[in-house]
Amino acid sequence: MKAARYYDRGDIRIDDVPEPEVAPGTVGIDVAWCGICGTDLHEYLEGPIFAPAHGHSHPISGETLPVTLGHEFSGVVYAVGEGVDDLEVGQHVVVEPYIIRDDVNTGPDSKDYHLSPDMNFIGLAGRGGGLGEKVVVQRRWVHPIDQSVPLDQAALVEPLSVGYHAVQRSGAKAGDVALVGGAGPIGLLTAAVLKAQGITVAISELSPLRRQKAVEAGVADYALDPSEVDVAEEVRKLTGGKGADVAFECTSVQVVLDTLMDALRPTGVLVVVSIWGKRAEFDMHKLVMKEIDLRGTIAYVNSHPATIELVESGKIDLSPFITGKIGLDGLVDEGFDTLINRNETAVKILVSPSGKGL
Amino acid sequence: MKAARYYDRGDIRIDDVPEPEVAPGTVGIDVAWCGICGTDLHEYLEGPIFAPAHGHSHPISGETLPVTLGHEFSGVVYAVGEGVDDLEVGQHVVVEPYIIRDDVNTGPDSKDYHLSPDMNFIGLAGRGGGLGEKVVVQRRWVHPIDQSVPLDQAALVEPLSVGYHAVQRSGAKAGDVALVGGAGPIGLLTAAVLKAQGITVAISELSPLRRQKAVEAGVADYALDPSEVDVAEEVRKLTGGKGADVAFECTSVQVVLDTLMDALRPTGVLVVVSIWGKRAEFDMHKLVMKEIDLRGTIAYVNSHPATIELVESGKIDLSPFITGKIGLDGLVDEGFDTLINRNETAVKILVSPSGKGL
Repeated sequence: MKAARYYDRGDIRIDDVPEPEVAPGTVGIDVAWCGICGTDLHEYLEGPIFAPAHGHSHPISGETLPVTLGHEFSGVVYAVGEGVDDLEVGQHVVVEPYIIRDDVNTGPDSKDYHLSPDMNFIGLAGRGGGLGEKVVVQRRWVHPIDQSVPLDQAALVEPLSVGYHAVQRSGAKAGDVALVGGAGPIGLLTAAVLKAQGITVAISELSPLRRQKAVEAGVADYALDPSEVDVAEEVRKLTGGKGADVAFECTSVQVVLDTLMDALRPTGVLVVVSIWGKRAEFDMHKLVMKEIDLRGTIAYVNSHPATIELVESGKIDLSPFITGKIGLDGLVDEGFDTLINRNETAVKILVSPSGKGL
Repeated sequence: MKAARYYDRGDIRIDDVPEPEVAPGTVGIDVAWCGICGTDLHEYLEGPIFAPAHGHSHPISGETLPVTLGHEFSGVVYAVGEGVDDLEVGQHVVVEPYIIRDDVNTGPDSKDYHLSPDMNFIGLAGRGGGLGEKVVVQRRWVHPIDQSVPLDQAALVEPLSVGYHAVQRSGAKAGDVALVGGAGPIGLLTAAVLKAQGITVAISELSPLRRQKAVEAGVADYALDPSEVDVAEEVRKLTGGKGADVAFECTSVQVVLDTLMDALRPTGVLVVVSIWGKRAEFDMHKLVMKEIDLRGTIAYVNSHPATIELVESGKIDLSPFITGKIGLDGLVDEGFDTLINRNETAVKILVSPSGKGL
C-alpha cells in the first residue's frame, strides 16, 4: 500500500509499504480522508519535533524515522482483531491518535492521560498514520461516527476535539462572550465549539479572507480587524464595559496575547491553545490585579465522544472548513506548499491516500 | 489625636489631627495595633502608588495627600453610629480596609467586589487609617473577633486574609502538596493557611533566617535552599516523581517563577500573589504542555470571616510572626528602616498608635 513517510526535515516520500497486521485488540481501518495539520508543517519545515529522530526511537512505539504521517483522519473498518466485538466491518470511524503507555489510566474518568510521560501521536511517532491507505489502531482509540456525517467532515473531528478541549478548559458557559485571537484552523474550530454551546464569539484576525471565512462559516458574531480597531475597546463596548468572559490565544503572537489580557473582564479566563516557540513577555501585574486565570491546553482527553455528538447532531457544520482535496502524490506540492505559501484562503486540506474519494 | 500621615515619597509625618466623626452606619474604633505592610514601604520608597497624588483626589474617598497610613489593624469599638445595632462598645474588631463604590454589590454572594472600578484601601487612599489613634469605618468592613484572640495577633488577620484568598484561588485541598516561593510575610502567612487546611508545605527561600522562621512557626514541612538544592527535583522526590499540586509565587523574582513552573505536576495550579513591577519572561510552552493554570490573586473578597475562624479556633497561631512592637514616633526609624534594611529577621512589626499597648 502507499503511505507518505517523513524521513527528515524537508524530506517526505510516498513509499510502497507492507499492509499493517490486524493484531488482537486492534481495528483495521481503510483511511478515507486525512487532514494536514500545522504540526505536520512544523515537522516538515523545522522537525523532527514530535517525530523520533534517527537514533532516538520512541520509548513507547519503539519506532524511529521514517514514520508514516497523518493524525487527523476518518475511515471505514475493514477488519477487527481478536477480542474486538463492539465494532464491525463497514463501520465509519475516527481515531483519537494517541500513543500512550499501557500502564496509564485511559478510562473515561481520566482527566490527564494526554499529559502522561512520553505521550505522543499516531502519525508522528509511529504506529502508522492517516496518510497511508490503511492503518491499524488499538480499539481504545477508535471512535465510531454515524454514517450521516460525510467521511470528509469526519476527518475534522480530531482538530475539532482540540477546540472542544480548549473550550472545556475555559469553563465558558452559554451566554458568555468569548474573544478568539486568530482565525486559523484551530481558532475557527474553537469558535465553532463556542458557538455550538451558545457563547457569543468575537474573533480578532488581521487577514480579511480569514475574517470573511469566520463570518460566512457562522462561527463568529463579530470579526474584528486589529489593524483598524482597538479590539479590547470594541469588546468592552459589546459587553457593556465589562470585557470578555473568556479568551483563546490561537496565534503565539505577543501582541495578540496582550490584546486578550486587556480585553478580559476581571476574573476572566485566557486559554492558550497555540504552541509558543519562545518565551512570552507576560504582564503579570495585569494577571494579578484582574485575577485572571491563564490556562494551558493541549490536544484532548476523553473529548472525542462529545465532539462527535456535536457533529452528528448538526450543531456544528464542518463543511465550510474543507478548502481542498488532494491525492497522496500531491501531498507536498499541492498540500504543504499551499498551506505554507497561500494559507490565507486554505483552512483544511484533506488527502485521500487511496485516491478513492477524489 | 496622633496619626502617621503620608505626604509624599520619603515624607511621613506624625501629625496632630482632629478625631474622626462617627457618622450613621459607621463604627468608631480605638486602634490597638497596626502592622506595617510591604505596600506601605513601596509608598514610602517609590510612591505615591495607591495613595492619591496631589491634584488627583481619589474618585471614591475624594481625598488626596496627605493621607493617614495603616491598613492592617485591630482595635476596640468606642462608639457606634446611628443604625448600627449588631456591634457594641468594647467589642474587639478587625477591619477589611476597602474603599469601594456604593453601587457595587459587596454582599456575601459577591466574588469580585475587590476588583471593582477605583477600588482602593483605607490607610492608603483616605478615610483614615490604622496608624492613627482612632478610625471610623463603615459597618460593612468591620469584623468582630473573639476576645480570646490577643489584639496584637488580630492585627495580622488582614495579611492572613491575603493568604487565605490566595489558597482559595489555588483550589488546594487536604492531602495536596504545595510549594511556596518565598518566606516573606505573605509567603509565611499563605503557608500557615495551607498547613491549617491539611496541605503539605514545602517552602523555597534563600535566607537561612527566614527558612528557620518557617520551620519554627510550623508552617513548612520542608524548607528548601534554592542555592543548595534543585528545588523542583526535591519536590518531585517528595511527591513520588509527580510534582507539586499547587504553587504560590510570593517574590516577583523571575527564577522563582521558573522554578515553580518546573516543580508543578501536569494540571497543577500556580497562584501569583506578588506584585510584579515589570513583565515576566513566561514559559508559555510549559504552561501548554503541562496544562498548568496560572492564577492571579489580589487582596481578599469575603475572606475575613473564614480567616478569623481559623485564628479563633486555634488552627493558626499568629504569634510567631510578630517580630517587633513600636510606638507611632518610631514608625520610620524603628519600623520602616528595620523592614527595609534588616528584613531577614523581621516578619511583622506592629505599631501602637496610642502607645497603650507598649
